Amino acid sequence: MSALDQFLRWLDLAGIAVFAASGALVASRKRMDAVGFVVVAAVTGLGGGTLRDLLLGRTPVLWLRAPEPLAVCAAAALLVFFTAHLVESRFRALLWADAVGLALFAVTGAELALISGADPWAAALLGVVSACFGGIVRDVICDEVPLILRREIYLTAAGAGAAAFVLLRVAGGAGRGAAVAAGVAVAFGIRGAALLRGWSLPPYRARPGRAYPEDDDGAGGRGR
Amino acid sequence: MSALDQFLRWLDLAGIAVFAASGALVASRKRMDAVGFVVVAAVTGLGGGTLRDLLLGRTPVLWLRAPEPLAVCAAAALLVFFTAHLVESRFRALLWADAVGLALFAVTGAELALISGADPWAAALLGVVSACFGGIVRDVICDEVPLILRREIYLTAAGAGAAAFVLLRVAGGAGRGAAVAAGVAVAFGIRGAALLRGWSLPPYRARPGRAYPEDDDGAGGRGR
Amino acid sequence: MSALDQFLRWLDLAGIAVFAASGALVASRKRMDAVGFVVVAAVTGLGGGTLRDLLLGRTPVLWLRAPEPLAVCAAAALLVFFTAHLVESRFRALLWADAVGLALFAVTGAELALISGADPWAAALLGVVSACFGGIVRDVICDEVPLILRREIYLTAAGAGAAAFVLLRVAGGAGRGAAVAAGVAVAFGIRGAALLRGWSLPPYRARPGRAYPEDDDGAGGRGR
Repeated sequence: MSALDQFLRWLDLAGIAVFAASGALVASRKRMDAVGFVVVAAVTGLGGGTLRDLLLGRTPVLWLRAPEPLAVCAAAALLVFFTAHLVESRFRALLWADAVGLALFAVTGAELALISGADPWAAALLGVVSACFGGIVRDVICDEVPLILRREIYLTAAGAGAAAFVLLRVAGGAGRGAAVAAGVAVAFGIRGAALLRGWSLPPYRARPGRAYPEDDDGAGGRGR
Repeated sequence: MSALDQFLRWLDLAGIAVFAASGALVASRKRMDAVGFVVVAAVTGLGGGTLRDLLLGRTPVLWLRAPEPLAVCAAAALLVFFTAHLVESRFRALLWADAVGLALFAVTGAELALISGADPWAAALLGVVSACFGGIVRDVICDEVPLILRREIYLTAAGAGAAAFVLLRVAGGAGRGAAVAAGVAVAFGIRGAALLRGWSLPPYRARPGRAYPEDDDGAGGRGR
Repeated sequence: MSALDQFLRWLDLAGIAVFAASGALVASRKRMDAVGFVVVAAVTGLGGGTLRDLLLGRTPVLWLRAPEPLAVCAAAALLVFFTAHLVESRFRALLWADAVGLALFAVTGAELALISGADPWAAALLGVVSACFGGIVRDVICDEVPLILRREIYLTAAGAGAAAFVLLRVAGGAGRGAAVAAGVAVAFGIRGAALLRGWSLPPYRARPGRAYPEDDDGAGGRGR
């Protein structure tokens, strides 16, 4: 394994660790037990890479091939379990951990797709999917409103980072290290600025939807 | 590629387009930004085909093999973004777009499974899965009550269309074009009639479930 | 197929049947129609095995290879549809059916992973994933609070059972039948005791999370 492969591998593990920490922070908000922390951390940290591997047909998926990804998730979960009370705003910490993971996964996902022979546009797209899926699953199973449905720029940041990386690699002929650094910087820069300044794209302006009609039929409709 | 393969390909893209439009209509109800429109449209339009490809082991999945599916989703999303305010009831439009997509995907999903060598019953089942999955994901990530949980006949329509198509192809020996047309007509006819006349199957009649006990433990239970 | 393979196959079908019944019981709580019963039963009964097959790359997945799994789900669904009114507490019945399925799938999932050549720790993990995924999907699509988010020990039971089975098989060199019996007994014993006595692990103790800020922006936030 070359030094750069090794570097990419570490980058992927770093992304897994911060996403896992974001999952554990949600678990702390929900007052789960230690096992719940590990589970939500693992689902969040490994969800994006798992879907990426499935879509590309790289099976068995990453965490069945090597023990490190899962060990990283468990370590991040337990660290949060024992230290989350020290954090002043767990929600801010969650947002920033999520932002770091988003930037790292957007690039490593695109890189892995390129290595697997995907077209450039498909590689960028897969970067976005890898970056966003873990967080979506985290929010769905924990019964939170998905971050991607909130106002601030999110997917756009992942898309810009993945696209910058792919462009530099394919069209620009940049070195791998430089392209990785540029892609991560673009994604994290945009998402970070969105968090700090509340950047958002203009929402659709017409009236919001009414609740689905006939939701009061007792069939389990959510009160709205 | 024969003329019929080409025809099936267009049919699949048409299904993707109307499902994507249904997703964009949900995005408009939630007042998302343009990126959110594209994302929900893509998830809805491509979700069923993606799961179908994964279950059959056809990887990389459809939208990593060719750019058209994603382009169609993006176009449908932007069209809805700029025209949804012209629609009187976005919810009715959503239901009908969903019905068209349901009918098209039930048949193309079953056809692709047959081509992949699946047994007839498995092909019909995969048609149903392809037809329903995109809409389920749309409703789950957008925090809506899934359409399949509502009263009117939904899955049954997809199942009848897929079964009609498979029967005509396998047992009846009908031509492909005729079987496709019949399957789509059956599925859309049943779902459309259910929408217009409120057709539903008899629900289970006993008392509804109570909320899960102990939901008031602060562990994130949904108010009910 | 040896007698033991046959035995494992029956065990897997038994797990599918009880999980399917748990799904149908949720459907009865939501007053769905007969088709809804079959669908939720099938999703619950086959979800874990489907994800297991996808993660291992065993495609087409189980219910596309043979008709029995789906037939078992349909039979369990219809049985519940016509008899659920006889059950005094459908919620208790649901919990116990779920517990039996959890124990069976934890072991059969781990066994299938071992047969596929997975490492021992990965096999135990896959047992847990197989055991829990069907129930998670059931609760998400039916809009219930996932059982894994509730207080009582759940995942831990599946993990202990899968780990016991793998340890006995790999390290202990135990016979297959003995290891299967021990694993199922461990998982069901722990989960059953948790249900009877309300066993739970200590939850994270700090303050629960506030609702995500800015949820009152009309973008579909869940009332909390």
